[in-house]
Order: sequence, then C-alpha cells, then structure tokens
Amino acid sequence: MLSKSHIKLITSLKQKKYRLQHGFFVVEGVKTIKELLQSKLILYALYTTESFNIDAKDEILITEAELKRISFLTTPNKALAIFKIPEVKPIEQNGLVLALDAVRDPGNLGTIIRLCDWFGIKDLICSKETVDCFNPKVIQATMGSIIRVNISYVDLELFLKEINVPVYGAFMEGETVYNMHLPNKGILVMGNEANGVSKDIEALIRKKVSIPRFGDLQATESLNVATATAILLSEFRRF
Amino acid sequence: MLSKSHIKLITSLKQKKYRLQHGFFVVEGVKTIKELLQSKLILYALYTTESFNIDAKDEILITEAELKRISFLTTPNKALAIFKIPEVKPIEQNGLVLALDAVRDPGNLGTIIRLCDWFGIKDLICSKETVDCFNPKVIQATMGSIIRVNISYVDLELFLKEINVPVYGAFMEGETVYNMHLPNKGILVMGNEANGVSKDIEALIRKKVSIPRFGDLQATESLNVATATAILLSEFRRF
Repeated sequence: MLSKSHIKLITSLKQKKYRLQHGFFVVEGVKTIKELLQSKLILYALYTTESFNIDAKDEILITEAELKRISFLTTPNKALAIFKIPEVKPIEQNGLVLALDAVRDPGNLGTIIRLCDWFGIKDLICSKETVDCFNPKVIQATMGSIIRVNISYVDLELFLKEINVPVYGAFMEGETVYNMHLPNKGILVMGNEANGVSKDIEALIRKKVSIPRFGDLQATESLNVATATAILLSEFRRF
Repeated sequence: MLSKSHIKLITSLKQKKYRLQHGFFVVEGVKTIKELLQSKLILYALYTTESFNIDAKDEILITEAELKRISFLTTPNKALAIFKIPEVKPIEQNGLVLALDAVRDPGNLGTIIRLCDWFGIKDLICSKETVDCFNPKVIQATMGSIIRVNISYVDLELFLKEINVPVYGAFMEGETVYNMHLPNKGILVMGNEANGVSKDIEALIRKKVSIPRFGDLQATESLNVATATAILLSEFRRF
C-alpha cells in the first residue's frame, strides 16, 4: 500500500531542491535497482509490483496503478526505489579525468556517465551549471553506471586553476584529435550543448582538440556532446 | 488561425500509418525549419507565432496557445512545419555505408543520422524493424541532418546477401577495432539496443568489430548504440 506521504516524498524527488533537502534520489526499473542493491548504496524504500525477495521492511508491494502514479516514466517498469545520495569521494586526479562545463541535457549526462564507466574514467567533474546527476532522467540513462563513477560538482574555473595536469578541451576549431599525442593523465573538458566551452574556462585550456568532419560543407554544424565525448574518450584510450 | 482539419492532420502525423497515408512529416523549431526550407524538400504548411517572411500562402500565423495544442514537444519552439516525405534515392554503395538492424529508439536513430552527416556517410540502410526516420522524435534529434543522408528501409538480410562489399558488424565479442585495418568501402552493421545484431544478420557478417572496455570487470555491460556508432565511424574515418 502506498501512503499519501510516500507519494508526496517521491514526487518531490523530481526536483533537485527536494533531493538535496531529503538526501534521496529515485531509481526505476528492476534491472537497474537490482544492480544498485548490490552496491554500497543505502536503500530507503522499494516500491514494486513483484517481490524482490529482500528484507521485508524495505519492500512495499504496490499495484500497477499505484506504480503508474509515482513513476516518472511514461511506461513504468515494475519497480521504483529510493536510495540515499552517497557521499562524494575526493577527486583522485589519477589518470584521465573528464570535466563538463554546463552540460544541461539529462540524457547527455547519463550517456556520458555510462561512457566514463566503459572507458575506466574514475572521476567526472561537473561545473555547478551542469544538470544534477541524481535527476531521474540522468539516472535512467546511466543504466547503473552512476555507482561506478565518482561525480563531483565544483567551481570548474577554480578547480582548473589549481591543478597541474594538462587540460584538454573540445573545440570546433581545435587541432585534429587523430594527429595528437594524448597523455594517460590529464583532464578533458567538454562544453555546453549550445555554446560549447565558456570563455572563462577556455582561458584555462592548454590544448584544443577537435574531431574532423568528413561530410560536405553543407553538413551538420556540430556533434552531440555525448557522441563527441565518446569519440574523444576512445581516442585517449586507444593505442 | 488553426482549423480543426489542420489540428487533426498534424496530430495524426505522430503515427507512422498516417505519415505514410498522407506522405507528410512534421518538423518543429525555427532553426531546423529554416534549414529545411533551403533544401529540396517541399513545404506543405508552416504554422508559426512569428512570420518567416516567406510566400504567404504557405504560412499560417498562430498564437502560442495554438502552437502548444499542435506541438509534439513539451516546450514548443515558435513554429511547426509540415513537409512532404521526399522520395528515396537509390543506394549508391560507394564508400562506407551504415546499416541498422532494428534500432528502436527515436533519439538513437536521430543521433545516428547526425553522425552519418558529420562523417560523410551518404547512405543509411535501415531494416524494416528500425524506427521510422520521419518519427517526430527522430526528426528533432537529427537537427536538420535528415535532408543530407539518404535513408532506405529494406529487407536487410536480402540486401546483405546481394551486395559484394565487406560487411562489418558491431559485436561485444568482436576483434578490437583499434587493431583492424578498415577499408574505405564497406558496410558497417549496428544492432538493436537490447539484443544487438540478430542471428540471421550475424550469419552474413564477415568481420566482427568491438570497442574495448577499459573499466573494471564490474563496469557497464555495453555502450549505447549511438555512442558505439560514433566511435566506430570515427575509427573508419581516421587516418
């Protein structure tokens, strides 16, 4: 059974303000929830139409109709869980670090987190203007990768001023990434969907990289930030 | 002014059945519509809150409220246009061709069309099970690239049986793409989001390619099909 206070809490977690206030975030779908249950994350409540066979006090069996009422998805997937937002670990600055300058689209951030997981990027640094990684749409797009990537929200300008590893940034007018020698240790900065890397951050970038375009002059102006990130991370990792 | 018959027509174009029946598709947003107006596409009607200063008979000025009523977007962007679905050109089979085996997500297909445009892939072959490229969500994600890529829906198995260029396919267990010599002419097949390349198509693939994973063993199972396509197209094009 779903109480009114449950519904109110879950619905509020769509907004960053209430996620911060309560310290909780929402995850949907059996597969992702099962993956997160096996991590160090702390479960607060699990609402499901079919039992997960876990400790009964955390599990609340609900009907399809009730799930539809609390789900953020058009097509709910059997279960919705509330987890505690984990503490952020200190940034290691070992190896390659990815930094995002105001990436706004939740789907893009989710895809980028999944890419970090694939390419073994331990730390993802987000500027304060980047969409919140506990946004339900981000969580949905990460497919469980959220637990394996350490995500920190920082003042990106200050952060880049204080580190001393090479800082790379993605720019339309940068040097062709295919010709560059790319280090194992460094930071790659990706910019906002519409405006790219901001002026203040641009001033702190040592090497501008770009992905060559092979189409006609008429071709598309830019790549989507998630696909550009995929190509650049692959270039940093390939041998 | 928006007539009832306009509303009915536009709303129906959300469905593939009616797009085929009427031979029309919907495009939203000033920037994309302007780009498409400069192409060879034939405009059927333009509904806009601000005049585009084009031939008056095609342009219908509407209010924000009316736009909200016909738009497929949560946040409509000033204009909605109906264009005629163009005729498909014959497949050239020159250079690199991309083929999709039952890619279902409209956002993924839109991103892949944009990638084809960027990497100068003239022909995109879709299996009949692939989402319709005139789906409004696909059009939205292509950002205008739809006019520069020739998209054909075919019986993919039959198509692959009849061609004689090397056929590559993306598989988890394929050979590392970074070690392979990739030709300028050939076909790259990408599979479905959940199931990858189907068995019947797999039998027709000469070379299986894969993108190495660099994370821990615990890492994400797979890359999103659009990001995997980005990396593989980049590998085919890089020198």
